[in-house]
Amino acid sequence: VLIKVINPNSTESMTKIIGGCARAVAGPGVSVEPVTAVGGPTAIESHYDDAIAVPGVLAAVSDGAAAGVDAFVIACFGDPGLYAARELTAAPVIGIAEAAMRSAAYLTRRFSVVTTLSRTVPHARELTHRYGVADLCGGIHACEVPVLDLELDPDARERVMAECRRALAIDRSEAIVLGCAGMADFCSQLSRELGVPVIDGVAAATATAVALVRLGLRTSKAGEFAFRSVRSV
Amino acid sequence: VLIKVINPNSTESMTKIIGGCARAVAGPGVSVEPVTAVGGPTAIESHYDDAIAVPGVLAAVSDGAAAGVDAFVIACFGDPGLYAARELTAAPVIGIAEAAMRSAAYLTRRFSVVTTLSRTVPHARELTHRYGVADLCGGIHACEVPVLDLELDPDARERVMAECRRALAIDRSEAIVLGCAGMADFCSQLSRELGVPVIDGVAAATATAVALVRLGLRTSKAGEFAFRSVRSV
Amino acid sequence: VLIKVINPNSTESMTKIIGGCARAVAGPGVSVEPVTAVGGPTAIESHYDDAIAVPGVLAAVSDGAAAGVDAFVIACFGDPGLYAARELTAAPVIGIAEAAMRSAAYLTRRFSVVTTLSRTVPHARELTHRYGVADLCGGIHACEVPVLDLELDPDARERVMAECRRALAIDRSEAIVLGCAGMADFCSQLSRELGVPVIDGVAAATATAVALVRLGLRTSKAGEFAFRSVRSV
Amino acid sequence: VLIKVINPNSTESMTKIIGGCARAVAGPGVSVEPVTAVGGPTAIESHYDDAIAVPGVLAAVSDGAAAGVDAFVIACFGDPGLYAARELTAAPVIGIAEAAMRSAAYLTRRFSVVTTLSRTVPHARELTHRYGVADLCGGIHACEVPVLDLELDPDARERVMAECRRALAIDRSEAIVLGCAGMADFCSQLSRELGVPVIDGVAAATATAVALVRLGLRTSKAGEFAFRSVRSV
Amino acid sequence: VLIKVINPNSTESMTKIIGGCARAVAGPGVSVEPVTAVGGPTAIESHYDDAIAVPGVLAAVSDGAAAGVDAFVIACFGDPGLYAARELTAAPVIGIAEAAMRSAAYLTRRFSVVTTLSRTVPHARELTHRYGVADLCGGIHACEVPVLDLELDPDARERVMAECRRALAIDRSEAIVLGCAGMADFCSQLSRELGVPVIDGVAAATATAVALVRLGLRTSKAGEFAFRSVRSV
Amino acid sequence: VLIKVINPNSTESMTKIIGGCARAVAGPGVSVEPVTAVGGPTAIESHYDDAIAVPGVLAAVSDGAAAGVDAFVIACFGDPGLYAARELTAAPVIGIAEAAMRSAAYLTRRFSVVTTLSRTVPHARELTHRYGVADLCGGIHACEVPVLDLELDPDARERVMAECRRALAIDRSEAIVLGCAGMADFCSQLSRELGVPVIDGVAAATATAVALVRLGLRTSKAGEFAFRSVRSV
Repeated sequence: VLIKVINPNSTESMTKIIGGCARAVAGPGVSVEPVTAVGGPTAIESHYDDAIAVPGVLAAVSDGAAAGVDAFVIACFGDPGLYAARELTAAPVIGIAEAAMRSAAYLTRRFSVVTTLSRTVPHARELTHRYGVADLCGGIHACEVPVLDLELDPDARERVMAECRRALAIDRSEAIVLGCAGMADFCSQLSRELGVPVIDGVAAATATAVALVRLGLRTSKAGEFAFRSVRSV
Repeated sequence: VLIKVINPNSTESMTKIIGGCARAVAGPGVSVEPVTAVGGPTAIESHYDDAIAVPGVLAAVSDGAAAGVDAFVIACFGDPGLYAARELTAAPVIGIAEAAMRSAAYLTRRFSVVTTLSRTVPHARELTHRYGVADLCGGIHACEVPVLDLELDPDARERVMAECRRALAIDRSEAIVLGCAGMADFCSQLSRELGVPVIDGVAAATATAVALVRLGLRTSKAGEFAFRSVRSV
Repeated sequence: VLIKVINPNSTESMTKIIGGCARAVAGPGVSVEPVTAVGGPTAIESHYDDAIAVPGVLAAVSDGAAAGVDAFVIACFGDPGLYAARELTAAPVIGIAEAAMRSAAYLTRRFSVVTTLSRTVPHARELTHRYGVADLCGGIHACEVPVLDLELDPDARERVMAECRRALAIDRSEAIVLGCAGMADFCSQLSRELGVPVIDGVAAATATAVALVRLGLRTSKAGEFAFRSVRSV
Repeated sequence: VLIKVINPNSTESMTKIIGGCARAVAGPGVSVEPVTAVGGPTAIESHYDDAIAVPGVLAAVSDGAAAGVDAFVIACFGDPGLYAARELTAAPVIGIAEAAMRSAAYLTRRFSVVTTLSRTVPHARELTHRYGVADLCGGIHACEVPVLDLELDPDARERVMAECRRALAIDRSEAIVLGCAGMADFCSQLSRELGVPVIDGVAAATATAVALVRLGLRTSKAGEFAFRSVRSV
Repeated sequence: VLIKVINPNSTESMTKIIGGCARAVAGPGVSVEPVTAVGGPTAIESHYDDAIAVPGVLAAVSDGAAAGVDAFVIACFGDPGLYAARELTAAPVIGIAEAAMRSAAYLTRRFSVVTTLSRTVPHARELTHRYGVADLCGGIHACEVPVLDLELDPDARERVMAECRRALAIDRSEAIVLGCAGMADFCSQLSRELGVPVIDGVAAATATAVALVRLGLRTSKAGEFAFRSVRSV
Repeated sequence: VLIKVINPNSTESMTKIIGGCARAVAGPGVSVEPVTAVGGPTAIESHYDDAIAVPGVLAAVSDGAAAGVDAFVIACFGDPGLYAARELTAAPVIGIAEAAMRSAAYLTRRFSVVTTLSRTVPHARELTHRYGVADLCGGIHACEVPVLDLELDPDARERVMAECRRALAIDRSEAIVLGCAGMADFCSQLSRELGVPVIDGVAAATATAVALVRLGLRTSKAGEFAFRSVRSV
């Protein structure tokens, strides 16, 4: 089983971290191939960043489809290009936001999302509606640490932790969903210290992708996600 | 990794089929232990049947928790006793309805549910709301084959197939969710003939349970699903 | 007119209180028969307690149906076994949560629920959705008094009162729904002191049951709640 | 107990029928006072009719409040003036649409509304949302019999019956809510012939009003429905 | 192009202010005719006020329809008589609440409403649902300044401003919708000082009315808003 | 007033048609500048097409912002790049789907959407939720005419007309929203023949853009749509 994990932004060090988190949960018999999408911004912190990153994500999916990849993970919490990617391959394509939030739904009926900058909160809120978890989401909280600082700023983990504590208290919630792929490697420590489940989407999406492959399930080609006909290009 | 798959009804032959379907998707390094809950009805086709089956399901979970099971699957599409079971163990407990419908959500934005008797349709409809997939569910259709006839009636598979075809056409949907654990072994043949994904909840819940175990995620004990204190018994 | 009021927990003193509250509102020509369900927990404060109480509730309904009872009240705010009970009789079966919340809807468009322990809040929240009053419910608040302490703890009434005041202020709500049958006898005093309607479900369900009997209305047997056929047992 | 039942339209013969239906369900110790609102149209079949009828309804409530009426019923399925009426008195004011639809919710999770003219369907649909029963309402069907013809046309009952049958079949529903006070006296015969509960709002609202009086519950004056201060007139 | 702007309350000075605000945004080639509805209360601060104002609004629409007006604005944030008015003319009829909230939706996904008295908040909340903007509305806040004091009280503007600031902070919202026609002339100053869009419904409805006239679009007469047949009067 | 109307696909002839439709409704004192986005597909009929078109749309907005354009219209029914575009300028950016559907909401409470290919229906359905008109949309219907054939196929207009008739009958709806910019020039003839309002988004968005400019309203920069900081690029 080969899972291709696509980092939509252009920061290679983040791709490496993401790859490690994905491998850690993939289980026996699964290979993880982390790649950096071409042409994306260094970090995705706005609708514009998201839009600009999409062509590179789609190219990576297209390449992977040709190479026989079994499933794809799009490793940015905005799930950029998710539906377009599903048109390019029958292999499952999983966004980390959908996987994180649906995985949380098996563990609790009240979680909080902790994300980077507050300007991305409305998009995350829309995703809770799109993925059917709006009633389960007690709140979406920004720690105001920019994406790249998650790696560079030595206080970043502490600030994320503080925001998680605040979120659990304010929302009276019972679990945390991490709202950025760049937080993936904070996950286990946060969970240990907070005493509640902390769900990282990179890991959740990878495990979900493996599950779908084992189930033999692939994207439906009967309608919305059918391969595009030549005509429309 | 040990997954305990609980058949809430008392029909042993169905437990055997369910166990086989679970094993087929569990993947390397996973053991599946199918059990028949004690004291349930021979089939679950009403709210009463569902209610009566619950104590046996909970006893099976309680036993499994003591024995160190890693995750549980409740293998009846009504997900009987799901929330109560989560109070008895920190190991993930997955219902086949929630797993089937959330798995379908990764593959399409329009699926139909095909179930047994029409009297169970309102409960299934409520589950689509509870699990946040009501907008994705194009319709819920009963083939009017009683649960036990799925195994005994030689025409059962054909009648389920016919109802699936009808559902896809009427709902303009792109995938089928099977609405009964007793249909689990029809799944791959249906998918082949219909040309769309067909999701069996037994398999989906097993694969999801494995995924959660690999992720190290367990039911949150911070609120709703905390272990019960002694006082309340 | 004979109304059977079922206490799902096994605490006889609570059955007595509940019976008194029901009788106080039944009106002329109505008999109230309070009973304690067999085999339930002493108090219902979790999903597990709720599930374990259901078989006793259903047995009480079944007995009452045979004896020609005109309507049933299930006197626990979780409405345990409500839909299953409706399959056992054509006489109306009313849950105290649904009756309390729907009665409140005739008096205000903004009420708060005050309940016992916070772990039961998510279930109450789900009921507001199930009964179509989620938009009317400004909040659900736990006073953290366990069910049995409502009777035993001399400060209980004061703590409930304090939580009601807090709820009205925080939610900017205009009425209180009591979230536990054990609070039934606090109702009139709370209302007097708070100056807003306080709705006790035991009373509300009893009055609703009488109303449905006077209307000649009975549970529909045309689908979901039809009597179960012999086959499925 | 004195219940004032207000017919918002100016057709006296309809007031008489409504009064009879209300009395039939009021129970012992309850007086019903049917009145015809002053200045309304002969029938209410549009938003304009509804708006024009409201001042007469409010005058009738105001008079009744001064005379010490215990509760009010507004006997038109559009519930004209309901919220305004609640500002004029603390006695409960019940609309027949809300009472019919909430009463149905105790008997089934799938009902159909059968009303007069199709132009009123969108308003009825809005009421299903306002009253929290949209998920329970399988459809709203017009028999295209104008309100006054319900009384005058000898075929009216048959046409309503035919539309009820169609509604039950198309919506796969299990009960009928009558969408016009002018259908009140068809109710029991329809129910007998259709074999499902048929809910007339005039009766349902009267029984609900009696229930609220017996409960000692009155409209909350803590916010939206407070008596108007002198200043604003 | 002739737009008739109807002030539903009887306060002439407010009509003058409203007319000025409408004219300021009408653009070239558009005439604005402000009128005071006959028989309304001096201010609309309750459901009763709203109901009593409606006949005068409808008479003004009826007159305007006969006189060939191109579009109508109903200049009270409760949108009194909106649907009834649409039955009286094919010319577009626009409420200031719907126009303000839909215009805001082009500028932000998170706005707050600031209105006069808190008793009107539930009606405004219902309108957010009716107009499909409930998810965009972060909160509805009352400054507790009665309608007529907006003009008379020299501190009124400052109190509205303070409430706007509070709303933006509490709701984390990005724009303000003014919840009363009497605030129309505060709009531009508020926007300047707050640094976010402030939307006045009088202006928004006027501009929307002009837009619909330029589009050649008129109220559909194919169903709900068809001209009433003679029979029903 | 200068409105820039952006055709996201690369078909120049369609840009010309779109420009004409926009000019026809712009009103006095307004200039319309139609442009073809660079790098888009010849037609947009899938998520992939939509995604690939976005960078060109954003470049056109960026250029227009620098040139002092007063408002922008994105002339494709999927509203590609709408939120990202709002980050690039404070001038209003209007999508034709949002403008068409919100304009329809002023004219009816039940419209149907008629679009090109059925694979785009799920995206249009999501937009009805995003824009708050899901309750108003009776159905979304595909005429199965590819976008470019709207111009080339002499039968196209007739096929769209036939689908509109079918939609009105099946959905019992009262107006049509055209689901493709390529249908813009069919609008007035369709409306004349169908006898109901037919709303073309290109015209609706242009008129809405003019309205917002006259209102002096601009995109809020206080949160989600703030200009991006340098850091994130």
